[in-house]
Amino acid sequence: MTFAVRIARVRARMAELDVDALLLSVGPDLPYLIGYEAMPLERLTMLVLARTGDARLVVPRLEAPRVERRPELFELVEWEETDDPIALVAGLLSPSARRVAIGDHTWARFVLGLQRALPSCAFVAASDVVGPVRMVKEADEIAALARAAHAVDAVAREMRSVTFAGRTELDVHRELVERMLAAGHERANFAIVAAGANAASPHHDPSATRAIGDRDIVLCDFGGQMHGYCSDITRMFHVGEPTAEIADVYSVLVEAQEAGVRAATVGTPCQDVDAASRRVIAQAGFGEYFVHRVGHGIGAEAHEDPYLVAGNTRPLEPGHVFSVEPGIYFPGRFGMRLEDIVVATADGPLRLNDASRAIAIVA
Amino acid sequence: MTFAVRIARVRARMAELDVDALLLSVGPDLPYLIGYEAMPLERLTMLVLARTGDARLVVPRLEAPRVERRPELFELVEWEETDDPIALVAGLLSPSARRVAIGDHTWARFVLGLQRALPSCAFVAASDVVGPVRMVKEADEIAALARAAHAVDAVAREMRSVTFAGRTELDVHRELVERMLAAGHERANFAIVAAGANAASPHHDPSATRAIGDRDIVLCDFGGQMHGYCSDITRMFHVGEPTAEIADVYSVLVEAQEAGVRAATVGTPCQDVDAASRRVIAQAGFGEYFVHRVGHGIGAEAHEDPYLVAGNTRPLEPGHVFSVEPGIYFPGRFGMRLEDIVVATADGPLRLNDASRAIAIVA
Repeated sequence: MTFAVRIARVRARMAELDVDALLLSVGPDLPYLIGYEAMPLERLTMLVLARTGDARLVVPRLEAPRVERRPELFELVEWEETDDPIALVAGLLSPSARRVAIGDHTWARFVLGLQRALPSCAFVAASDVVGPVRMVKEADEIAALARAAHAVDAVAREMRSVTFAGRTELDVHRELVERMLAAGHERANFAIVAAGANAASPHHDPSATRAIGDRDIVLCDFGGQMHGYCSDITRMFHVGEPTAEIADVYSVLVEAQEAGVRAATVGTPCQDVDAASRRVIAQAGFGEYFVHRVGHGIGAEAHEDPYLVAGNTRPLEPGHVFSVEPGIYFPGRFGMRLEDIVVATADGPLRLNDASRAIAIVA
Repeated sequence: MTFAVRIARVRARMAELDVDALLLSVGPDLPYLIGYEAMPLERLTMLVLARTGDARLVVPRLEAPRVERRPELFELVEWEETDDPIALVAGLLSPSARRVAIGDHTWARFVLGLQRALPSCAFVAASDVVGPVRMVKEADEIAALARAAHAVDAVAREMRSVTFAGRTELDVHRELVERMLAAGHERANFAIVAAGANAASPHHDPSATRAIGDRDIVLCDFGGQMHGYCSDITRMFHVGEPTAEIADVYSVLVEAQEAGVRAATVGTPCQDVDAASRRVIAQAGFGEYFVHRVGHGIGAEAHEDPYLVAGNTRPLEPGHVFSVEPGIYFPGRFGMRLEDIVVATADGPLRLNDASRAIAIVA
């Protein structure tokens, strides 16, 4: 899908929602529409996209050389260090604009500044405009997500022959980051490494002091960005043979993840995928220990629509791409999670990850 | 300075500005006040700090295990996957609240949601509340900034004996990132590597294809975070001996940077530091090629108040810490910048960086 087609689809959404102008700054919407990513700094970069007419990209002069010129898509408007970029953006809107959609990740200071500069405009979330367009992936986007998935699959496979015992969580975290970069990612977004009881904290920060022990379970959840699209995978490792209890709980988790993937057919409400995994875990008696939704959409952003969570009745469509990642967490003891990225297709759910899902016995 | 003292100072600012509640999410204000950093994801984390009374930290349940409990500072309020965190935050505010300050980096979607949930509240920028407190660094913060500066000084020194020729900008970028982490940074924020004409783009993105050549000038501007405080340094490298022209322009740059540092005395308006560097460059005839302000404050954030820019009449105070980084950029030909971090003290300006400022001749 070309940028021009994406912009046309977004403009159609603007018409549906009666949005006069779209204002995009930091975050993935901007590169999705014009191929340029704003720096997350205090100097404002903002695309001003009216429903009809020209689009303009407002950038600080010193960043203008970074911008690949695409005159068929937007005109570049540079501001100097002593200019007021808020006034500049406000001045580019039509005086008749009444409803403005602003990018989800835009910093509060700019939102408040624009609201002051445009007192007759109502502000709405750009996710309502761009989200539905971004959510349905085209073939080239699915290919990019598959390449990113295969890159972290390779890392997950390599890690099965790595020594864990005696190293800190942070040390293993750094190895994951390096391996993701070596495997072709342009950046690592995160690499959770959580040993023993730390694995019961779903978003644990790798510790610089916690050494991985001789009989530890280790959760590794890592992902990054490759050619603009994100990867995200969770695999479990164990130093030496796991206890019978851990092996039993893990077999429940594998079954729960498989049930979630199988449920992810076109037309199924998002919440039913969550329920399918949850049912398996609840039937095994661990329901209270699965403390989060089963998954999130993924694309240019690590987490995006659609979210697979109770209450989300949106039916899956072909081209929706999302994680299926149930977990079971026993506070103070141990925890585990298993995650693959899945595409909903007319032929059924398709896993993009294919690294072994068996718990890896490591030294 | 303890967290309790910082909170007391912030509450005093709230009283001055007639702010009833402070709402903080992602960004450096939150760890500055309570030692916890929110994850930059779609699940809302938010500190609700009323001008008087209790403070509450609203976090998603799955991230609660990450939070170090500090009951003397805040009460933890967990929300479940199917709860509405916006309604939860709004419900924690006093019904009499009329003026709410919201953290600068808070995502637009949460700002708009809170504005809808609190229609009788005016929203203002938290930077007006927290910024003046954070701007004046205490002794332990200056020590942390000095340690981070010395770490990147060591990297800059090591790079003087590294081979540049034949490598891509991206390859050198990765080496800088690895060296910053090895030198004790917990994260690298950026590492600009710009060769030849690319060095004329102040915020150039390192290229995966541009190979550094035999007679290239190379700009390296890199920094990260160490124990919560940021580093930022720019040094110039040259493959082989520079031409007489480059050597001449560089001597102007060194003089301009020295003039900026010397001007940074307590009581001097921020804009005068910019003017001091700019005057030297203009007198040499290169004024139009110095296209950005001379510097920015630095602390828990890579760029923060005070900004050293024309128009900023704020006088420097003891404990202000900022970069002094003039640059000269000839589009299509070459560019250069020289940057140190400086503290304003009662005894005069103090550079935190001490790596050689001479252009490094490399292979």
